[in-house]
Amino acid sequence: MPTISQRGEQMPSSPIRKLVPYAEAARKKGVQVYHLNIGQPDIETPAAALDAVRHFDFKILEYSHSAGNESYRQKLTQYYSRFDISLDPSQIMITTGGSEAILFGMMGCLDPGDEIIIPEPFYANCSGFAAEAGVILRPVNSHIEDGFALPPMEAFEAQVTKRTRAVLICNPNNPTGYLYSRQELETLKQICLKYDLFLFSDEAYREFCYTGTHFSALSLTEMEDHVVLMDTISKRYSACGGRIGAFITRNRAVLNATMKFAQARLSPPSFAQILGEAAVDLPVDYFDGVKTEYLARRDLLVKEMNAIPGVFCPNPGGAFYAMARLPVPDAEAFCQWLLEEFSHEGHTVMLAPGNGFYATPGLGKNEVRLAYVLNRDALKKAITCLKIALDRYPDTAIKKG
Amino acid sequence: MPTISQRGEQMPSSPIRKLVPYAEAARKKGVQVYHLNIGQPDIETPAAALDAVRHFDFKILEYSHSAGNESYRQKLTQYYSRFDISLDPSQIMITTGGSEAILFGMMGCLDPGDEIIIPEPFYANCSGFAAEAGVILRPVNSHIEDGFALPPMEAFEAQVTKRTRAVLICNPNNPTGYLYSRQELETLKQICLKYDLFLFSDEAYREFCYTGTHFSALSLTEMEDHVVLMDTISKRYSACGGRIGAFITRNRAVLNATMKFAQARLSPPSFAQILGEAAVDLPVDYFDGVKTEYLARRDLLVKEMNAIPGVFCPNPGGAFYAMARLPVPDAEAFCQWLLEEFSHEGHTVMLAPGNGFYATPGLGKNEVRLAYVLNRDALKKAITCLKIALDRYPDTAIKKG
Repeated sequence: MPTISQRGEQMPSSPIRKLVPYAEAARKKGVQVYHLNIGQPDIETPAAALDAVRHFDFKILEYSHSAGNESYRQKLTQYYSRFDISLDPSQIMITTGGSEAILFGMMGCLDPGDEIIIPEPFYANCSGFAAEAGVILRPVNSHIEDGFALPPMEAFEAQVTKRTRAVLICNPNNPTGYLYSRQELETLKQICLKYDLFLFSDEAYREFCYTGTHFSALSLTEMEDHVVLMDTISKRYSACGGRIGAFITRNRAVLNATMKFAQARLSPPSFAQILGEAAVDLPVDYFDGVKTEYLARRDLLVKEMNAIPGVFCPNPGGAFYAMARLPVPDAEAFCQWLLEEFSHEGHTVMLAPGNGFYATPGLGKNEVRLAYVLNRDALKKAITCLKIALDRYPDTAIKKG
Repeated sequence: MPTISQRGEQMPSSPIRKLVPYAEAARKKGVQVYHLNIGQPDIETPAAALDAVRHFDFKILEYSHSAGNESYRQKLTQYYSRFDISLDPSQIMITTGGSEAILFGMMGCLDPGDEIIIPEPFYANCSGFAAEAGVILRPVNSHIEDGFALPPMEAFEAQVTKRTRAVLICNPNNPTGYLYSRQELETLKQICLKYDLFLFSDEAYREFCYTGTHFSALSLTEMEDHVVLMDTISKRYSACGGRIGAFITRNRAVLNATMKFAQARLSPPSFAQILGEAAVDLPVDYFDGVKTEYLARRDLLVKEMNAIPGVFCPNPGGAFYAMARLPVPDAEAFCQWLLEEFSHEGHTVMLAPGNGFYATPGLGKNEVRLAYVLNRDALKKAITCLKIALDRYPDTAIKKG
């Protein structure tokens, strides 16, 4: 019998999804699971954007342009201009989710064995994309104590080798929620210019900034040929299932190379391009309501989490994630226990174990990522569950409260 | 300035799409282009399937399961049972187009440097996916003279090395339209069993067989662990823009590995999964009308093409493509000339140069692929255009009427 590849063997499991079978088993036992493990918002997709899909008028569901519909790319230039980012449509390539944008960046800019420096913890699926592209992620450790601020320039420089080709950030960050300051972006610029590196910037959560304002990598001067933006409508418009993202750069050679990858897979999905295009026309105050909601959830989450004995949860500046340190020796074992053994009044809570967001073995072992994608009532109940669970868990280090 | 990767440099351009800029320029000059270059059917997407999308009733466009909606996978087992193929939903993974299914197969079953034996000419984007996966395609030449029948077993065996991991076929074939017989599938089975290889079978055009009936690789006995089916709804239901395909195997290890790749990119597109699921419920005679239309087009195309002096076009048994040999020294130059220099009564025709479908340099140089995706009237006009063009083209070898 032919065997699978080493690549398939070594491909990491998603820390966000690998406990899914335990959650399914819990549900089958009648336990209701609060999902804080995955960034699937409960916010409704804007009705006007959904309606645009309902009212499509074509009779043939054709391939779109490999770079996405021209009309959509044109419209996106308006979207970015709101952030004083000037683009022309040829600099925008519509991708199948932000996922494909990240993969295209790795494929088009790096060869197998080349390296990307990435602050850890980082978006876990980057490990998967790196495995697919044969690229090595060189982590630079950021720390829960200072809320996962950008590590100092020296920490990046210590990781530079002759195979380093790019720095990859997610801003505001998934999984930490950290919002990088303009000054931190300027630091990254220095590193990229000094070592001639690409700056890959995943800005999926641009609109969701609570403490400070967002500064895009595309706004950096002198970095036209270095910056590649990976974007997506998944979180912005609560449209995760659409699988529409964008790969944006002013580097013409990168665009030309990426176009070949885009052509090989023919086109991005047609229906959700309609949704994305319509979403650009939402009233500009659309995000105010969503942001207010996320902000209230964040405040609730951080307060309630830090009130649990032994828990430490820094206050994230953006996105809708927080990393927290739990008073347990092994958060993954605890997360599994939550699903397999625990329930409180018929409920339990699902978290993403922190270790999956780190490349350095051993790090994040007592951390979890929480996505505040549930309404405040559910969120509060979920955290109550967690508190009771930590009190009941045999291996909890601190017993008090 | 950071440079692109060698992978990006070496990534082949799509032979189907690389002449697009010339077509755009022709259009701007007011010339109408008959598109025989791309497999974008003019057949309407079934209204019932489109309506299912129009009537979606969710308020949040959520991620689906990474393997696709359970209800859709369940429904697909019914679809395959019509061909006496027995599957359970866990053996089906919904992919983002057939493209992703091919890429998943290469990623999960082969390591960089591993080899796939493939009859050439072959679906051109396989070269792109192979470049992404770092996999080497070892072509076995099939010949226009015998309509591109499966090369003999010895030709395959001559290509086997210690890095060979799979054989890849497309049945019926894109670009040749050749329909492999059951006996030819049995030959491939022998090769795969003898050398312990995967059999990757792209069966996107299963319903479109005109001469003989389709025999699926999944119907081969003793091949449960060897066969991986790459499928798609793009051509079946004229739903190319949906980007919905399927990766199907009974090999559990391959499914488990592939699931990790599927989880990394989160989920296939949600809207078109609704379309795919609804399409399974179309009346079973749905394909009769479509097939009758394609058959009439094939007959027209083959007859008209072979009536052009110096042209040879074998009669394809399935799909909606034909390869033809033209009396020109360089078909790619001719195809470009058609768009740049030629017009007849305000029209020209776009073809896909044959060389892009071959891996062996020099082969297919005087061949083109034609997709009969236009109605008979347009098809006839397109071939008339081609005939006049060949007569007028300075480098045409045979001048007679």
